Amino acid sequence: MISKLDIQQASSRVRGISVKTPLIGNTFLNDLWDCEVLLKCEQFQSIGAFKIRGAANFALQLKPEELSRGLVTHSSGNHAQAVSYMAYIMKVKAVIVMPKNSNQQKIKNARKWGAEIVLCEPTIESRIETANAIAKESGCIMIPPFDHEWIVAGQSTAAMEIIAEHNDLDYIITPLGGGGLLAGTSLSARYFSPNTKVIGAEPEEAADGYEGFSSDERVTTVNANTVADGLRTTVGEIPFEIIKSNIHDIWLAQEDQIVEWMYRFWNETKMIVEPSCVVPLVAMHAQKEKLKGKKIAVIITGGNVDFNALP
Amino acid sequence: MISKLDIQQASSRVRGISVKTPLIGNTFLNDLWDCEVLLKCEQFQSIGAFKIRGAANFALQLKPEELSRGLVTHSSGNHAQAVSYMAYIMKVKAVIVMPKNSNQQKIKNARKWGAEIVLCEPTIESRIETANAIAKESGCIMIPPFDHEWIVAGQSTAAMEIIAEHNDLDYIITPLGGGGLLAGTSLSARYFSPNTKVIGAEPEEAADGYEGFSSDERVTTVNANTVADGLRTTVGEIPFEIIKSNIHDIWLAQEDQIVEWMYRFWNETKMIVEPSCVVPLVAMHAQKEKLKGKKIAVIITGGNVDFNALP
Repeated sequence: MISKLDIQQASSRVRGISVKTPLIGNTFLNDLWDCEVLLKCEQFQSIGAFKIRGAANFALQLKPEELSRGLVTHSSGNHAQAVSYMAYIMKVKAVIVMPKNSNQQKIKNARKWGAEIVLCEPTIESRIETANAIAKESGCIMIPPFDHEWIVAGQSTAAMEIIAEHNDLDYIITPLGGGGLLAGTSLSARYFSPNTKVIGAEPEEAADGYEGFSSDERVTTVNANTVADGLRTTVGEIPFEIIKSNIHDIWLAQEDQIVEWMYRFWNETKMIVEPSCVVPLVAMHAQKEKLKGKKIAVIITGGNVDFNALP
Repeated sequence: MISKLDIQQASSRVRGISVKTPLIGNTFLNDLWDCEVLLKCEQFQSIGAFKIRGAANFALQLKPEELSRGLVTHSSGNHAQAVSYMAYIMKVKAVIVMPKNSNQQKIKNARKWGAEIVLCEPTIESRIETANAIAKESGCIMIPPFDHEWIVAGQSTAAMEIIAEHNDLDYIITPLGGGGLLAGTSLSARYFSPNTKVIGAEPEEAADGYEGFSSDERVTTVNANTVADGLRTTVGEIPFEIIKSNIHDIWLAQEDQIVEWMYRFWNETKMIVEPSCVVPLVAMHAQKEKLKGKKIAVIITGGNVDFNALP
């Protein structure tokens, strides 16, 4: 159970490592939906994504003896960079297991901070197995990508910053992949802005969260065939339990609109964002009658795009 | 003579139309130059560029009788969008003269707010002649792009926002084209942060400002052959007089590094910026020994890139 105090402590703990990112309004979206949209720009974190929050909240709770053994994780993307960056800051080693078919930019970035990258087969089993073997052999501490209370509490700090600036939001909307961000956001709202409804957005082609939320039972496999590479994973056990009783709804994004919306968003907002970030926008567009007159924050999760392999 | 009060009044006047844009730090630039860089993100204005500040400060000083006659201007780019947007807000007509070879995105955006676009030959003479003829015939009020005290005072408000947040800056750096932004910035610093040095940055291939500043005599022609399309114009008379006695220096950017730096900047900052915006960064990189240990704000002027004609 993540308490109010856990979230407040996480906010203090990560400050200085994660940046208090700006909330930026956008005339185009306001006019399009006749509402007020604020974009929480997590792509402006040092690693270009919100994942630094969870990784920082985890790494900073390790004992010196644990830390000195180094960090290990498996990730296809932004969590890899987050753990690599934390190890760099804390001057310990990091080993990151990444699937062979990862976005080249994300591999390059993880390497930039000095982590050792171990490539594995592009299956979740291979990732976990490889990372566990490394942890066992080397004694490195595993920092899980989302299925841990420390990670969820860390991710909740983005919504804490939003709520500190605006305590009158109708909605906060985040993408839903492993569920760390959505779960954390839903707890921040529950404790500190109970009138704000929290919505998750998922690609139709990776709708395990939607199905789980609808049936009240977590779906543990998904044949994710979405361009939104950050959202291909299934929702974790701990995030699912939190999400199920704290969010208002999950909205789906039509797959064939994601890429088109990404470029539209780049053009209208001058922000480089990943396909995963526009999943909430595509989903919102399909629900636009619900947005009219509302004040809404959308968490823009990251901007680590591989310019050499644009969709 | 633009006074302290003129600038304070401009700041109050434009508020609500121009956005108080965020100042965003960036680890990549900090590490590269061993200093603290803050990016003033004018690309997040509604029109995607700082030019709204000057146009707003001008239009809001017109008498109702003048306003009702409509607005006219000539511009190859962001000023066109600024005037078009002001006319839209104030519910009057706008006629914008744009050279035939303008960036298609900027033409499209100017049209988006309802302005009538008149295309002309791509020479400064044709632009001015066409716009003057329209003003004479229709009675529309001409809003000049930079060579007017109201425009300079309007552009000064970006630096006012920077200084309000940080009164201990060593440098503020802006690109130099027509000179409205640099002149306005230099006045804001002179009046409100006198220890901050203001630097202009120009492409080597459009260095009329640099030559004029060095010789103390304005250069009125330039064979501008730079990819930084916003900086191809020569410095105006009014801006030149202000710049000459209020800035610290002008630094030049090597032409062949501008495009490479633009993509590097996109990748490292997740911001879409025009080639003109990276001219300060290229110029700073060449002067990096002067930046060490300093606190520096860079005004990022706009993000209206034509994705179908990327350099």
